[in-house]
Amino acid sequence: MKGYLIENVTMIPVDGRVSWTVGDIAVAGDRILETGEGLGAKYPELARVSGKDRLALPGLVNCHTHCAMTLLRGYADDLPLMEWLETKIFPREAHLNGEDVYWASMLAMLEMIKGGTTAFADMYYFMEETAKAAAESGIRAVLSRGLTCTDGGGAGRLEENVELARNWHGKAEGRITVMLGPHAPYTTTADYLKEVIAAADEHGLGLHIHLSETQAEVGQIRERYGMGSVEWMESIGLFEGRHVLAAHCVVISPEEREILVQRGVGVAHNPQSNLKLASGVAPVPELLSAGGLVGLGTDGASSNNDLDMFEEMRACAMIHKGVRLDPTLLPASQVLDMATRQGARVAGLDRTGSIQAGYKADLILLNLRKPHLTPMYDPVSHCVYAVHAEDVDTVWVDGKMLMKGREMLAVDEEKILYEAGRRGNDLIRR
Amino acid sequence: MKGYLIENVTMIPVDGRVSWTVGDIAVAGDRILETGEGLGAKYPELARVSGKDRLALPGLVNCHTHCAMTLLRGYADDLPLMEWLETKIFPREAHLNGEDVYWASMLAMLEMIKGGTTAFADMYYFMEETAKAAAESGIRAVLSRGLTCTDGGGAGRLEENVELARNWHGKAEGRITVMLGPHAPYTTTADYLKEVIAAADEHGLGLHIHLSETQAEVGQIRERYGMGSVEWMESIGLFEGRHVLAAHCVVISPEEREILVQRGVGVAHNPQSNLKLASGVAPVPELLSAGGLVGLGTDGASSNNDLDMFEEMRACAMIHKGVRLDPTLLPASQVLDMATRQGARVAGLDRTGSIQAGYKADLILLNLRKPHLTPMYDPVSHCVYAVHAEDVDTVWVDGKMLMKGREMLAVDEEKILYEAGRRGNDLIRR
Repeated sequence: MKGYLIENVTMIPVDGRVSWTVGDIAVAGDRILETGEGLGAKYPELARVSGKDRLALPGLVNCHTHCAMTLLRGYADDLPLMEWLETKIFPREAHLNGEDVYWASMLAMLEMIKGGTTAFADMYYFMEETAKAAAESGIRAVLSRGLTCTDGGGAGRLEENVELARNWHGKAEGRITVMLGPHAPYTTTADYLKEVIAAADEHGLGLHIHLSETQAEVGQIRERYGMGSVEWMESIGLFEGRHVLAAHCVVISPEEREILVQRGVGVAHNPQSNLKLASGVAPVPELLSAGGLVGLGTDGASSNNDLDMFEEMRACAMIHKGVRLDPTLLPASQVLDMATRQGARVAGLDRTGSIQAGYKADLILLNLRKPHLTPMYDPVSHCVYAVHAEDVDTVWVDGKMLMKGREMLAVDEEKILYEAGRRGNDLIRR
Repeated sequence: MKGYLIENVTMIPVDGRVSWTVGDIAVAGDRILETGEGLGAKYPELARVSGKDRLALPGLVNCHTHCAMTLLRGYADDLPLMEWLETKIFPREAHLNGEDVYWASMLAMLEMIKGGTTAFADMYYFMEETAKAAAESGIRAVLSRGLTCTDGGGAGRLEENVELARNWHGKAEGRITVMLGPHAPYTTTADYLKEVIAAADEHGLGLHIHLSETQAEVGQIRERYGMGSVEWMESIGLFEGRHVLAAHCVVISPEEREILVQRGVGVAHNPQSNLKLASGVAPVPELLSAGGLVGLGTDGASSNNDLDMFEEMRACAMIHKGVRLDPTLLPASQVLDMATRQGARVAGLDRTGSIQAGYKADLILLNLRKPHLTPMYDPVSHCVYAVHAEDVDTVWVDGKMLMKGREMLAVDEEKILYEAGRRGNDLIRR
């Protein structure tokens, strides 16, 4: 039996309760075998990893991003949304090719792994390239092709997404799952959404959608259909009997919140992107207290501008307190749960997001020997309010060590920086 | 002439305009001699520093913190403000001693230097210890003793603060300045504030005060005096004819905003602390468009929980956009100006906060060879939306190199981590 024994480590298992303990973690194959004290004698064959000055966490799950947009990181900021999209982002995206998407995806995965993110959910195009990058980088990925139909190309895109599922769903040792990606209410029609739903059910796939992101979107949908975006999706039957990952949900009525909760929709909360694009602050405290399922996401690097889930946790824990004037909202334990165990549920990942026997061995070690982590009274507080992405020391996904002492083991960091940097600088001149 | 020539480096001088250029930076003694292209021939005696893959910035100015509170980092979070203060923070602070404050201050300075902060303004007690730490660590410091009088000990504290000024104002090669620290409207009286003002004028010192931080404070002041906190200070003459650094200013009326602007009060905006403690969001866009002087601060590590000015810039750039639903507010260039040049003015630091001839040589180099900084189209955007504290590679304060390749040159990092960690764990058991 090959694997790892992380010895005498402080850990936050996130196994229902979010609190810390000290012990060993045994990993073999793609799974966590066992956690507990003094496992050394029981597993003499496992490679030893010292837990000294380390904190073990489940790997973070980024529930909503667009990997390829790393190539547009910082290309345009501080602009009104439509001006930003129409004069900056869309014209550049029109020049993206598959090879760009491959290297941009590699760059995103490199950044995510180095920042302790072990799984992500993505929606974009040229997704075969992102799948290839995920297979090679070793990360866990939930991929969908963005499906819009307003230009008449909807059928082709849906066929592409189904083809992506045929090629990649359950592949790369099971690390890749494919969902269908109906883009958003304002870029689709009821008929098209029904086709997408039928295809999802035919192939047993979940759905990933942008939903109720801005007041402009919801205003448009209300004008067209006389109801909010979530209500319109409910009327079409989108949430009925299948896994749905809905990104944003910023502009929702109390009735729509109830629909999301009752239907078990997984909401990806993207606090930094929602702030930076001035979409607003999602009603996450209400969603959570109503029993809703909420994970965290970074959104793409052009609206964030990094893919740092520790920052996203911090933003989530702070922003709701500040705008509601209630310091007890979104305590650190709840936010860490959202970033790991709940995030895995939002992304449709089974037995992932906790350090417990039988779960996927997606876990990370933080280096606690840092000024900004000294002293440490409560590891849970530190994870949310003080840890930086660079404190991530070691990363395993699916039982495989992808980073050790901040050295990438599975990919060539220098080559990725070179190729992505070169292509970015070329892209903005095309 | 001894000093440094940083060659062929991308730099953001923040000299009025906030934009980037490429050139050399010549540093000698405590000053920047000159910036420009091809300075090598002119300064053959200066030690060469390569600018390859580096971005030079003025060092960041943390306009409001409490260094010693690093010892209470993460000790208590997510509680209502008064419960947090009265059951957690105050009882522990009662057990702090001078040696604790020395090591906690060293820890704070270590964290700040490693995160690119080259100057800070502090208010606390045992400030002789913080001054000693600043003298040794090489950082630039603006120190004040917190002055409260409601327990009858006001006169002694004022004498302590004046004594601090006698001992330290203008000392440590001029790196330390001392201000008087009237704590806040709700912990002082009009008579006491007038004594403090008289002492400030007698000794030529500025004032550092917490002002209009919470609705509770302003409610109390309104009840006592029939006006807001800023108005009350104005009525006492606090702002008249001297430098005042006012931290927070969250709960202010439009009339009070005008007072702050007209009186040239330097406002320290602490976005993360204000969110985490649920104080709210300060009206910074209005202050700035009225011509107000605003810098950024982290506040103490027990309400943040780190001293990371890059995070503070990011929070500042994002939060106002998000709560006002306007993505053009607080653009990156304005936020970087606040964190450097404007921050130096807020802290009362002369010829500091810009990379230009004759200014203090407080500057930092960032390492751009990072996944989350690739590609780079706009260095200004990166500094605010993507750079992490760990990207800081080299730091100079007052012309002296304090960190090189992330190795601390002036202090013993391991010893500080050991001493501060040990004292923290002892403190919470006292």
